[in-house]
Amino acid sequence: MAAPSTVAIAGTGLIGGSIGLALRRGGATVIGYDADRARADAAVEVGAVDRAVGALSEAVAGADVTVVAVPVGRVAAVVIEALDAGAAVVTDVGSVKSPLLTEVATARPDAADRYVGGHPMAGSEQTGVEGADADLLLGATWVLTPNSRTDATAFSAVQSLVRATGAEMLAIPAQRHDELVAIVSHVPQLAATTLMDLAATTGRDETTLLRLAAGGFRDMTRIAASDTSIWPDICLANRDAILGAFDGYLDALTRVRALVADGDRQDLLAVLERARDARRSLPSGARTGETLAELRIPVPDRPGVVAEVATLAGELGVNIADIEIAHSSEGAGGVLVLVVAADEATRFEEALAERGYHSAHTEIS
Amino acid sequence: MAAPSTVAIAGTGLIGGSIGLALRRGGATVIGYDADRARADAAVEVGAVDRAVGALSEAVAGADVTVVAVPVGRVAAVVIEALDAGAAVVTDVGSVKSPLLTEVATARPDAADRYVGGHPMAGSEQTGVEGADADLLLGATWVLTPNSRTDATAFSAVQSLVRATGAEMLAIPAQRHDELVAIVSHVPQLAATTLMDLAATTGRDETTLLRLAAGGFRDMTRIAASDTSIWPDICLANRDAILGAFDGYLDALTRVRALVADGDRQDLLAVLERARDARRSLPSGARTGETLAELRIPVPDRPGVVAEVATLAGELGVNIADIEIAHSSEGAGGVLVLVVAADEATRFEEALAERGYHSAHTEIS
Repeated sequence: MAAPSTVAIAGTGLIGGSIGLALRRGGATVIGYDADRARADAAVEVGAVDRAVGALSEAVAGADVTVVAVPVGRVAAVVIEALDAGAAVVTDVGSVKSPLLTEVATARPDAADRYVGGHPMAGSEQTGVEGADADLLLGATWVLTPNSRTDATAFSAVQSLVRATGAEMLAIPAQRHDELVAIVSHVPQLAATTLMDLAATTGRDETTLLRLAAGGFRDMTRIAASDTSIWPDICLANRDAILGAFDGYLDALTRVRALVADGDRQDLLAVLERARDARRSLPSGARTGETLAELRIPVPDRPGVVAEVATLAGELGVNIADIEIAHSSEGAGGVLVLVVAADEATRFEEALAERGYHSAHTEIS
Repeated sequence: MAAPSTVAIAGTGLIGGSIGLALRRGGATVIGYDADRARADAAVEVGAVDRAVGALSEAVAGADVTVVAVPVGRVAAVVIEALDAGAAVVTDVGSVKSPLLTEVATARPDAADRYVGGHPMAGSEQTGVEGADADLLLGATWVLTPNSRTDATAFSAVQSLVRATGAEMLAIPAQRHDELVAIVSHVPQLAATTLMDLAATTGRDETTLLRLAAGGFRDMTRIAASDTSIWPDICLANRDAILGAFDGYLDALTRVRALVADGDRQDLLAVLERARDARRSLPSGARTGETLAELRIPVPDRPGVVAEVATLAGELGVNIADIEIAHSSEGAGGVLVLVVAADEATRFEEALAERGYHSAHTEIS
C-alpha cells in the first residue's frame, strides 16, 4: 500500500516530531496538533509538521492516518477523541498496549476497528520536539498490535506509515507485547535505576565508589539518566506484566547469588557463557538490500485475519515489508498481499499452510 | 618521584601489555615475562615490552617495579615468587585485593612491605596482548591499597608508575576496595548477565523479544558480552563482599518492586530522580590543566603513615598527582611530599590537621 499522503500527529514531542520529520522527508503532508499550542508551533519551527492547528478535530479531518503521540497516561483519551472526531485510521506510540486496547474497545466498540495500537521501539536522551530526528526510527522495530477487531485496510495504512519512516513493523498481540517490553525495557529501567541509587546511597564512600565506576557500570546505568517523568505512568499502566517480569528477574538473581555463595564455578560459568552468547547474537537492526517476495493469500472476509497472519510473521521472525488486502470484486473473500524477504517466503508459507492459509509467492525486485 | 626507568611485567596479556605500551611511550625499559613463552614473544611483537625473558627471576632483576598482571587466581603465587626472586617493589592488577594481601603477608611477613596491591579500573572487550592499547589507562582510576606494613618508598615507586601510564591513583584500604568493586563492578556484571540470560531463555518468543531490545537494554547488557573466563575466579575471591552487595541490591530491588505493586507514583518518582541525578553527576574521568600544589608534611618514621595519608586523600576525593617521602638527614622522621590540585590543597590540609598532621603548601606550575 502506498504511504499515507496526509498524516495528523497529535502530540508534537520528540517521537511525534521525529515521525513528522521522517514522513515529510518521504513527501507526506503532516498536520500537527498539541494541547499546548506552543509545542505545536515549535514543531512547525523545526520542520516536523507542515502546519499546526488548534483543535484535534481540525487535524484529523482529511488525514489518512492520525498518530497519537502523547504520554502514556493520556493516550486512551486522545485516541477516543480522534475516533469521535471521525479520524479515518488512528494509531498511537504508547509503550503499554493491552490496557489501552481494552479501554478503547470498551469505550467505542463500534469504532475500535479503525484503531491500531503501535509502539516504535526508539527513544533518545533528548526530550521535546527540539530533539526530534528524522532518522530516529530508521531500522527501529515498530510494534503494531492488531487484534480480531482490526480492520485490514486500517492495519495496512498504519503499516505503510511505519514503513515510510524507515522502521520495521512487527505485529504481535497486545498482551504479549506488554509482557515482552516488561522484560526488555521496563524492568531493565528499574534495575538500572536501583543499581545507580544503591551505588549513590551506599554511605560514607560515595565519592570513592563513583570514581571506581568503570565503563561497564556506566553502560549499565546509562538509562537511569533518561527522562524520569514517563516511568510512573508506564509502571502503573503495565503493572501486572512488570511485576511478573520483576519476579522472574529476582528469582534468576537469587539463583545466581546461590551459585556465588556455593562457589559453583561450573554452573556460574555456564550462565555467564549462555548470556555472553545471547548478547553477542543480539540482532543489530535493519537489514537492507535483500530480495523481496510477494505472497498472495486468499483469505475469508472475517475479522482477525490480518492480525492472525501478521502476528504469525512476528512469531517466526519474518519481517513484513508491505501488507495490503485486495478485496475480490465478487464473493465475500479477498486476497491478502504481503511482501517479505524472498529467503523467508517458503518458511512463512509452510507455517501459513499449517494454519489453513494457502498462498503463492513471486520474487519482486 | 621520577617514573621507574626499568619495569618488569609478569603476565603479558591485555592489561600487562597496555601498561607496557604506556610505560615505553614514557621512556621506560620494559621486560616481559609470561608463563606461556609465546605470549611474551607476542608482547615483543606488538611493542608492549622491550624484550621477553624465560624466567620471572630474570625479569625482576634490575627492575625498579615488577607488575604482576596474571589472572586473579594466580596473582598471589606470582607475587610471592617475585618477592622471593628479590624484586625491589612488586604490585599487581588483580580485581580483588583483601584476600591477596592477607595471603602475601602471611606467606612472606618480612617481604610484604615491598608489595603494594593495585587495581587499574580499566578493561576492554578485547582479550590478549593483541588488544593492548597505550591509552587504555589514560584517565582511568588506578586503585592502590597500601596498609600499615607498606614501605613508603615502595608505595611512591608504584604511584609514579601509575602516573606514568596516565592513570589517576586512588588509595583505599583493601577491604573497602573489595566492598566497593562488588557494588560497581562484580554485582553489575552478574546483574547484566542475569538480565540477558532471562531475556534469552524466556520461552517461545525469544526472537520477537530480542527484536524489541532497544538501546537501553543493549547498553545494560553490554558487559555480559565480555570475556566470561575471569568471573568465576573473581566471584570466588571476592565471595563475601559480592554476597553483601548482592543482598543490598536484592533488597533495593524488592523495595522498588513494592512501589510498583502499590502504585506509589510519588516514591517511585523519587527513586528515579535520585538515580537520574546521581548518574548525571557520575565523574567523567581525567581532569587536565589544573594548577597543582605541593604539600610538605613532616611525618614520624613509623609504618602506615603513607597508607594513612594517601587513604585520607582517597576518602576526600582529593587526587594525588605525586607522592614521595624525603627522609631527614638527622633524626627519625621525614617529610612526606604530596602534589594535589591547588584548589583542593586547603581542604586536604584541614583534614590532615584533624588527624595531627601539620603541613604547608605552595602552588607549583
